[in-house]
Amino acid sequence: MSLCVRNIKRAESAVVDALGKYGVATVHEAQGRKGLLASYMRPIYRPASISGSAVTCQVSPGDNWMIHVAVEQCNPGDVLVVAPSSPCEDGFFGDLLATSLMAHGVRGLIMDAGVRDVAVLTEMGFPVWSKAIFAQGTIKETVGNVNLPLVCAGALVNPGDVIVADDDGVCVVRREEAADVAEQARKREENEGDKRARLQAGELGLDIYKMRERLAEKGLRWVDEAP
Amino acid sequence: MSLCVRNIKRAESAVVDALGKYGVATVHEAQGRKGLLASYMRPIYRPASISGSAVTCQVSPGDNWMIHVAVEQCNPGDVLVVAPSSPCEDGFFGDLLATSLMAHGVRGLIMDAGVRDVAVLTEMGFPVWSKAIFAQGTIKETVGNVNLPLVCAGALVNPGDVIVADDDGVCVVRREEAADVAEQARKREENEGDKRARLQAGELGLDIYKMRERLAEKGLRWVDEAP
Amino acid sequence: MSLCVRNIKRAESAVVDALGKYGVATVHEAQGRKGLLASYMRPIYRPASISGSAVTCQVSPGDNWMIHVAVEQCNPGDVLVVAPSSPCEDGFFGDLLATSLMAHGVRGLIMDAGVRDVAVLTEMGFPVWSKAIFAQGTIKETVGNVNLPLVCAGALVNPGDVIVADDDGVCVVRREEAADVAEQARKREENEGDKRARLQAGELGLDIYKMRERLAEKGLRWVDEAP
Amino acid sequence: MSLCVRNIKRAESAVVDALGKYGVATVHEAQGRKGLLASYMRPIYRPASISGSAVTCQVSPGDNWMIHVAVEQCNPGDVLVVAPSSPCEDGFFGDLLATSLMAHGVRGLIMDAGVRDVAVLTEMGFPVWSKAIFAQGTIKETVGNVNLPLVCAGALVNPGDVIVADDDGVCVVRREEAADVAEQARKREENEGDKRARLQAGELGLDIYKMRERLAEKGLRWVDEAP
Amino acid sequence: MSLCVRNIKRAESAVVDALGKYGVATVHEAQGRKGLLASYMRPIYRPASISGSAVTCQVSPGDNWMIHVAVEQCNPGDVLVVAPSSPCEDGFFGDLLATSLMAHGVRGLIMDAGVRDVAVLTEMGFPVWSKAIFAQGTIKETVGNVNLPLVCAGALVNPGDVIVADDDGVCVVRREEAADVAEQARKREENEGDKRARLQAGELGLDIYKMRERLAEKGLRWVDEAP
Amino acid sequence: MSLCVRNIKRAESAVVDALGKYGVATVHEAQGRKGLLASYMRPIYRPASISGSAVTCQVSPGDNWMIHVAVEQCNPGDVLVVAPSSPCEDGFFGDLLATSLMAHGVRGLIMDAGVRDVAVLTEMGFPVWSKAIFAQGTIKETVGNVNLPLVCAGALVNPGDVIVADDDGVCVVRREEAADVAEQARKREENEGDKRARLQAGELGLDIYKMRERLAEKGLRWVDEAP
Repeated sequence: MSLCVRNIKRAESAVVDALGKYGVATVHEAQGRKGLLASYMRPIYRPASISGSAVTCQVSPGDNWMIHVAVEQCNPGDVLVVAPSSPCEDGFFGDLLATSLMAHGVRGLIMDAGVRDVAVLTEMGFPVWSKAIFAQGTIKETVGNVNLPLVCAGALVNPGDVIVADDDGVCVVRREEAADVAEQARKREENEGDKRARLQAGELGLDIYKMRERLAEKGLRWVDEAP
Repeated sequence: MSLCVRNIKRAESAVVDALGKYGVATVHEAQGRKGLLASYMRPIYRPASISGSAVTCQVSPGDNWMIHVAVEQCNPGDVLVVAPSSPCEDGFFGDLLATSLMAHGVRGLIMDAGVRDVAVLTEMGFPVWSKAIFAQGTIKETVGNVNLPLVCAGALVNPGDVIVADDDGVCVVRREEAADVAEQARKREENEGDKRARLQAGELGLDIYKMRERLAEKGLRWVDEAP
Repeated sequence: MSLCVRNIKRAESAVVDALGKYGVATVHEAQGRKGLLASYMRPIYRPASISGSAVTCQVSPGDNWMIHVAVEQCNPGDVLVVAPSSPCEDGFFGDLLATSLMAHGVRGLIMDAGVRDVAVLTEMGFPVWSKAIFAQGTIKETVGNVNLPLVCAGALVNPGDVIVADDDGVCVVRREEAADVAEQARKREENEGDKRARLQAGELGLDIYKMRERLAEKGLRWVDEAP
Repeated sequence: MSLCVRNIKRAESAVVDALGKYGVATVHEAQGRKGLLASYMRPIYRPASISGSAVTCQVSPGDNWMIHVAVEQCNPGDVLVVAPSSPCEDGFFGDLLATSLMAHGVRGLIMDAGVRDVAVLTEMGFPVWSKAIFAQGTIKETVGNVNLPLVCAGALVNPGDVIVADDDGVCVVRREEAADVAEQARKREENEGDKRARLQAGELGLDIYKMRERLAEKGLRWVDEAP
Repeated sequence: MSLCVRNIKRAESAVVDALGKYGVATVHEAQGRKGLLASYMRPIYRPASISGSAVTCQVSPGDNWMIHVAVEQCNPGDVLVVAPSSPCEDGFFGDLLATSLMAHGVRGLIMDAGVRDVAVLTEMGFPVWSKAIFAQGTIKETVGNVNLPLVCAGALVNPGDVIVADDDGVCVVRREEAADVAEQARKREENEGDKRARLQAGELGLDIYKMRERLAEKGLRWVDEAP
Repeated sequence: MSLCVRNIKRAESAVVDALGKYGVATVHEAQGRKGLLASYMRPIYRPASISGSAVTCQVSPGDNWMIHVAVEQCNPGDVLVVAPSSPCEDGFFGDLLATSLMAHGVRGLIMDAGVRDVAVLTEMGFPVWSKAIFAQGTIKETVGNVNLPLVCAGALVNPGDVIVADDDGVCVVRREEAADVAEQARKREENEGDKRARLQAGELGLDIYKMRERLAEKGLRWVDEAP
């Protein structure tokens, strides 16, 4: 059986936008180093940076039919997250689907497979993070699921979870935890500003973080010459 | 035995140029989803877009001697297609060979191996699609073949076939089919213009392509909430 | 036991700078086709081109503590070379560490693992060659070594060796051989200028390098038509 | 924060054992082609075939400490499922841990990373499916989670889900669906027996499954000679 | 359009069998180091060794329908060669299809994708060379081609070409060249017997092949101690 | 310039043999978790277990000439270690070279590239650890080095270092440290015997190693139910 779920809960847009502002590396730290998609997920152009609520879409290998179904479920501010049921690098997505998603206010695409028409997507300014760029076309024969939980590039994504994506990759934040994570991220950023200034002035992390003693305890020895 | 074939048939230049205008994704669809080279073939800079007649060159791993032989067989409007007889990522090609190819009007290089001097190639505007960027040098000890059919990145390329390459990758079109494929590609493009406009206006692919009924027949059910 | 060696010998800065000017492909040839790091080492932005004296840093997988130790050992003109003791793609390095290294005059980072904050690193103009871009954070629990020889991306790097890195990848030159290699590279470049002009004028490498006879000896035959 | 959950629900042992008897390919089909772990998960020896209830264990890269915590939570008939929080091929597991798991009746290990001592594990008859075989040792510095849901080799595994593993790979069945899936698998097997006999007698699948007409409708043409 | 070609030419069975006896490494050398499939093609059990006439079958990713069509075209002594139109690791083939192929005298399968039921295939003694072992099931929705030329694992295979496969991998020999290649292989084997005996007696290849002088000419120097 | 060094120092044979007895995992731990070759180095058959003194041999990609030079430098009890100067999976080594090495008492081969004739090598009982199995032949045109230090599969190997290889992979031990490492390995083994017995009796590692308190300090909490 194949399902398309119409109603999903989304995080507050202020929270979604805040997470986007902090970026993937900070958000990932702020939520305890979890939620990253695999490092093979790369933006088709750089710089690119978005956040949004996940609409999830599971497709069959070589078959992009369900993406058309998913478009209808997208609201402005959403990010479409697509994963095939077995690994595939085909080009499931191109400029026509991007045109359709942009018309519905979708902020970007996370595709655990291939995309094509990347020159046009780049001109359009529609950001995509994908496993591959590949012109191989797909068919429309098999159904899948929209807005059920899925595993995308090694991470579990529930519909309505917050997606944060930038040049460092892609991170997913549980909808229920999004506000807390945004707050943690804000604190980290504040904290970093001061450190950046001190580091810029030439101060050492060894001193700022008072690491010397603990390093010595763990067995590090400074020597003048190699033994 | 090792051969360099001097005379090859090429497609008409108008056809070659038309195919280049439509690009890889469209051409690949227009010829029935065949002829793509592997997705690991990536342009060294973007955007890049060419078409041309294939001059084929089989080299030994770590030995670029035959590329010098191939240069002489290139006409203006050609694309040089190089594949090693066993997998290799060495840098078979650099700025001197690119200078030579440009001087003979060659439009680009398809290299199922590595290339180097990519900063200079980028400045020169000589487009290359390759498996790797790697400075590892090569030798000149073994002979191979020029203008015999070869398998490049998983696709069969005959001398004189048309190569289309852009940011989406590389596609080969049989010389004999090139005019037909160009015509099919033209029709696809015409068809797409109208669809793009409708999608841009927010109309759904589900409706434009009348997919709802067939999706339901295949078992898709729309539900308000996740079960 | 874990060591941080304070004093290392470096090559003369004029030699280091000269090597950087010739670039990776030329330097690699000039020293007899050795010293290249693996082709998976890619710059996070392009174009990028540096040379410098290696400060080496061995870390544990998922643990970037020793990079803080290494910063203190860096002089202006150095390049930091980091390798984990087992393969890891975590993001060991981000904008704060880059700020610190820039403040100490370090010219770039060679990281046989992942880095993050690449949008900021790009804006800062701090060049990095890495195996991956990945936001996955690291911890600070285990010690390693600074300024001992290490294997980075398949190449042995001694502290004080010269690192040359550009869009083609990364090359290491033994400190003791650096002056000789720079001289060899200079000769190659001189030699190339003349050839480039002749190739640009349409002359063939086959003729410039007088290859036709030797090719025939090795078995190459030119034929008018494919057999 | 790091948690070890003591009480998890398990499927009935009769159901668990039945699923093991049908094997991965049949179970995967019986539950609608879902639940497979990535194809890189391979048994360290063959043949090997198990089923059991999942005890899940998330570790840090290069740190196997939590496996010791997980052992205590294992009951006879369980299968231990271990995944690192970022990709790692270190040898997290060897013969001592296997001895401990066998002593507690654990049926096997699913490890999305590396294992070592595989010659001894083979002699002991303790089956392991892993991403790699690698002697690289691990440390005991960081805590993780036991018996929380995790993503292992691309599949979501909840504690108490049923793991089926054999020479074809690894499949996870939701605990709540296990009885139904076992029943579906039983039906498939019955159905297959008859087909196997007919195929063995030389009858064609084309005829048994009455495919000829539908193939023709989809455009297949039989011709005597290649065009 | 999709075609199934009924009549193909095959090499003489005596030639096919002779090639199988010499094995992949010898046959590949005997035909001038060409025709090897990619090194990722591995036997599902070892030792395994076959030769036979190729029946070719192109499938869509995730769709094994055309294999049923191909079975009907197989004669005793054939080898089925299957390649997907874009890269895919799904398990296209299992014990039922193997039963059918064995009933028709097929000697083995070359699959540029995944297979499953490998424990049963091993018991049945039906040899398979594949890119992956993966239980992921396939559908029957799209048609392809049987007995047209295809590229399998990087090598061009025409229907009726001879396939030789053993523990070293897979090699294809053109039907028209098969008798010549078998004769060349026979000569190589004769030649090797003598050399093997001399090497077994401790004689050095350096002396048997009189390499010392040519090595010295190429620049090799023997020294007593490392410089 | 290319060198073959005739005289190298080797570790005492009693030490070499002792290291082999302890195996890769134990030796690697005993020397402080260093010296492992990459996990892609796999034995061509299992079980296999050797130790020996390294004779090193650097070859060019696709050229096995120097292996013939290396054979002459091998003594009984040695292990031949071969690495190409750029990555290559060709089959540099087959049964004739194995026959020659066995005749000179060599215990096995470590090959950072491909090998062939693996069915015969298995029958002969000549153990090989390699990156690939591939029938692709090589030529004899370029010289390299014998008995100079080289990087093999990511590890530095000096001539005369001790190689330990078994089903877990390959480890190199510095000649100067071999006796100490053997002694450390002996102590580890003694220590493990007792632990194995206690684990076999069902005692937990948590208790044997007294881990509970330290785990709690690091933040682990045991809870009865998932939150």
